[in-house]
Amino acid sequence: MAGDDTPGPVIVLVEPQLGENIGMAARAMLNFGLTDLRLVRPRDVWPNQKAINAASGADSVVEAARVFDTTEEAVADLQRVYAATARTRDMRKTVVTPRKAADDMRGFSAAGERCGILFGPERAGLDNDDVALADTLLSVPLNPAFSSLNIAQAVLLVAYEWFHTEDETPPEVFVEGRTGPAARADLIALFKHLESELVAGGFLYPPEKAPVMVRNLRNMLQRAHLTDQEVRTLRGVIKGLTERRDR
Amino acid sequence: MAGDDTPGPVIVLVEPQLGENIGMAARAMLNFGLTDLRLVRPRDVWPNQKAINAASGADSVVEAARVFDTTEEAVADLQRVYAATARTRDMRKTVVTPRKAADDMRGFSAAGERCGILFGPERAGLDNDDVALADTLLSVPLNPAFSSLNIAQAVLLVAYEWFHTEDETPPEVFVEGRTGPAARADLIALFKHLESELVAGGFLYPPEKAPVMVRNLRNMLQRAHLTDQEVRTLRGVIKGLTERRDR
Repeated sequence: MAGDDTPGPVIVLVEPQLGENIGMAARAMLNFGLTDLRLVRPRDVWPNQKAINAASGADSVVEAARVFDTTEEAVADLQRVYAATARTRDMRKTVVTPRKAADDMRGFSAAGERCGILFGPERAGLDNDDVALADTLLSVPLNPAFSSLNIAQAVLLVAYEWFHTEDETPPEVFVEGRTGPAARADLIALFKHLESELVAGGFLYPPEKAPVMVRNLRNMLQRAHLTDQEVRTLRGVIKGLTERRDR
Repeated sequence: MAGDDTPGPVIVLVEPQLGENIGMAARAMLNFGLTDLRLVRPRDVWPNQKAINAASGADSVVEAARVFDTTEEAVADLQRVYAATARTRDMRKTVVTPRKAADDMRGFSAAGERCGILFGPERAGLDNDDVALADTLLSVPLNPAFSSLNIAQAVLLVAYEWFHTEDETPPEVFVEGRTGPAARADLIALFKHLESELVAGGFLYPPEKAPVMVRNLRNMLQRAHLTDQEVRTLRGVIKGLTERRDR
């Protein structure tokens, strides 16, 4: 994962109502390398079996979760606190997208500043006193006609953006598979095999159009990035088709 | 939402096992403006009340979902098909991240090409025959030590990236709130009030350090972007603190 100098943000759930949501949030976190979960006055008894069940393999995060009586205590050791909010608050505050928060947090974390994000209870969201403990609001851009993310989904998106800021997966990779491309000579032999059979079958006609058609076919086959085995298979296919015709 | 020339990708769930997951996928979709849901051989009877309940407001997507007997039929009208996959398949195929897929799909869609993404059943994932119907694989970069996204979460991330490619929410916004910044004269009056009380209280001492301390205090207060009301409040605070002391 990321080096020790960029620990991920702490996830703080304030007054979470359902054990299942805590578990799903934990699972969302661990998928993206986040492990520090804090709960402020969870509604149900803690530890909570529903949370462990819903964590579905991420029980380590649930079991290590710390429980606090107040939000102040939960964020006391942090330097940067975001408040996740759906609705615009009547407060003079900066609001950032999850992507911007992730980029900023990566920098803060590298500078040794601990970051955390507050998420409020399922229906009500964070109360204004909790928001006042945060320096910045975080809001996920959503469909204005339908905006209804649950806690675990909001945590997932933030955690995803965090992971993305340092993940090195290339945007696009062509996976080679077991074998590499066919030898060029074999590819050309396939082309010639196909083309001679198409001439015999009256497909490459009239002759003046043949060069263009041949080029198009060759380019099309090139796009398939054929392996040795596939070239042999296609030659067998051609044979299978023409034997019926030539019989 | 995006204009009619860039319809969102179709979401195809192949053999989804749980109605709840279908509902949650629908909810994930609608949060990001996606509405075309297709199901191939859902395990349980359809329509499905659990799906509608879990959709939690996104029932329109569930109710409009089309059901197919085969994946071929479900993707027949599409030009670009992605197969969401967690594990590396032993196939020569291109794999892209959700972000890359979203960027590419925005372009495809604008060119009139319909896109779709296949998601497999909860435990097994897509079978290889379904993957063979796709031109590209889509894989979410995850914590190698713990990779366990459920269908609705995978749909959420893809839908989120799709929405992000055209959403115009600025990464960072300072929300003004009800009133704008205080008039400069009032701010300066606050500074002078504070500074004269601090001199009287022996805080701005020794005199040679006072200019730097004053500047630091002024810059700190500037960062609060105080409103008229807040300036008045702070002057009251200073008065409240100094009146007690002077009694």
